[in-house]
Amino acid sequence: MANPLSRTVMVTGSSRGLGLEIVRQLAVADNPPKVIIATCRNPDKATELQALARDHQQIKVIKFDVVDYKSLPSVVEEVKAAVGSLGLNLLVNNAGIMEKCSTQMFGVPLQDLEPQMFRNVLETNTIAPLMLIKALLPQLRVAAAATSGPAGAPRAMVVNISSIMASMGTFLDRHGIYAYRSSKTALNMVTKILAEDPEMKGLLFVAIHPGWVRTDMGTTVAPLRAEDSVSQMLRVVANINEKQNGVLLNYDGSVLPW
Amino acid sequence: MANPLSRTVMVTGSSRGLGLEIVRQLAVADNPPKVIIATCRNPDKATELQALARDHQQIKVIKFDVVDYKSLPSVVEEVKAAVGSLGLNLLVNNAGIMEKCSTQMFGVPLQDLEPQMFRNVLETNTIAPLMLIKALLPQLRVAAAATSGPAGAPRAMVVNISSIMASMGTFLDRHGIYAYRSSKTALNMVTKILAEDPEMKGLLFVAIHPGWVRTDMGTTVAPLRAEDSVSQMLRVVANINEKQNGVLLNYDGSVLPW
Repeated sequence: MANPLSRTVMVTGSSRGLGLEIVRQLAVADNPPKVIIATCRNPDKATELQALARDHQQIKVIKFDVVDYKSLPSVVEEVKAAVGSLGLNLLVNNAGIMEKCSTQMFGVPLQDLEPQMFRNVLETNTIAPLMLIKALLPQLRVAAAATSGPAGAPRAMVVNISSIMASMGTFLDRHGIYAYRSSKTALNMVTKILAEDPEMKGLLFVAIHPGWVRTDMGTTVAPLRAEDSVSQMLRVVANINEKQNGVLLNYDGSVLPW
Repeated sequence: MANPLSRTVMVTGSSRGLGLEIVRQLAVADNPPKVIIATCRNPDKATELQALARDHQQIKVIKFDVVDYKSLPSVVEEVKAAVGSLGLNLLVNNAGIMEKCSTQMFGVPLQDLEPQMFRNVLETNTIAPLMLIKALLPQLRVAAAATSGPAGAPRAMVVNISSIMASMGTFLDRHGIYAYRSSKTALNMVTKILAEDPEMKGLLFVAIHPGWVRTDMGTTVAPLRAEDSVSQMLRVVANINEKQNGVLLNYDGSVLPW
């Protein structure tokens, strides 16, 4: 295969925002993946995703709340049934949350940040992606073991949607947002540990900053459209190589500081 | 004051290891702090700490489990009573845990890493330090507002005990340890956010790597004695300046990459 986008892909948090746009652009691509697994918490309410799935047979919608680890065995079975002998070429850990309050646009002032908010954000943004990767390792390894495709091209990879707000080496004048920012920094570290783990040989792991995008999380004041963020990210992902294993990439393909 | 070590200091996780050694070295210093608050989960079982407290009147032992947030109001009252009008010059967030198993020296293989282990490590190492800082901000601000001491010397600071294992820019051939490493990376980000937060003006925040130390966590194969780690860390802390706000320091005072 030319790149991991051309065979089997799974995207979490696909009912709206970046996840939905990733599924849409993959489905309408010239050379679409054979299987696109789109997960979301409430498929019944995901009207845009369902409409897309009706138009594109290769989209398989699976109900999955990423923090519901008890459902992982059955989700893995559904993935296995959908991808068959191809295994899973690409997992996009896109589902994520940010702590919110009514008094500011992003995050919560420290005096109002309660442990349970911090826990929820870490659970969804840090623990859940790793638990899903762990559960899908057999499927990723099946894809990695495939012998087709040019030498050097990654056959199985995980893209963790992160944020420039998690980059400690990048000064931002957007202050606070303690839970979201540190949860994504922890996710960057998880990405880095996976990339260095000898047990993960043959798999590629990257974290990617999608830009500041007009989604429910990014709000309407964000400068970037989801379409433009996703088209650039997919180009980056399609051209990724092993030297980029374990890095934090910007959506334009440049490497961001930790 | 010459440095934040000379007046009021609080150290969490003081029953053993680095915490106990920090309290000991502060107590026996030529110019010891007026008040050393040493917290631990089970003061009744902390025989070494209790013996030290009997010999050094300025040590006040407080029972405190850092993840027991319900106890924070009463802990804060005890701190307030102990430090009086001086406020709190230095908080050392030392209490920390690492995920463990019986099959390897450090951490847990990914296949055995359960969500609850990851949660516990994030709770103790990431959420709890921030919740304690939040609760003690009034006391830290009292100390920061003191008018004595040389200009430029920090009057109130927080030292978060972190780890080089949380440095993404430092390659380690010690693999895995997903929960501990990412929890300390998240703590580094929390430190950085605090340092940049305009609400925290006048306070200084640093993360410190104590070295690989022969403690219960570091194991007996570690190269560094607790005495040597702590003596160097205390020298670094005593000489810290505002330029070091929001950095990850090695115990020798050098700056580590994120």
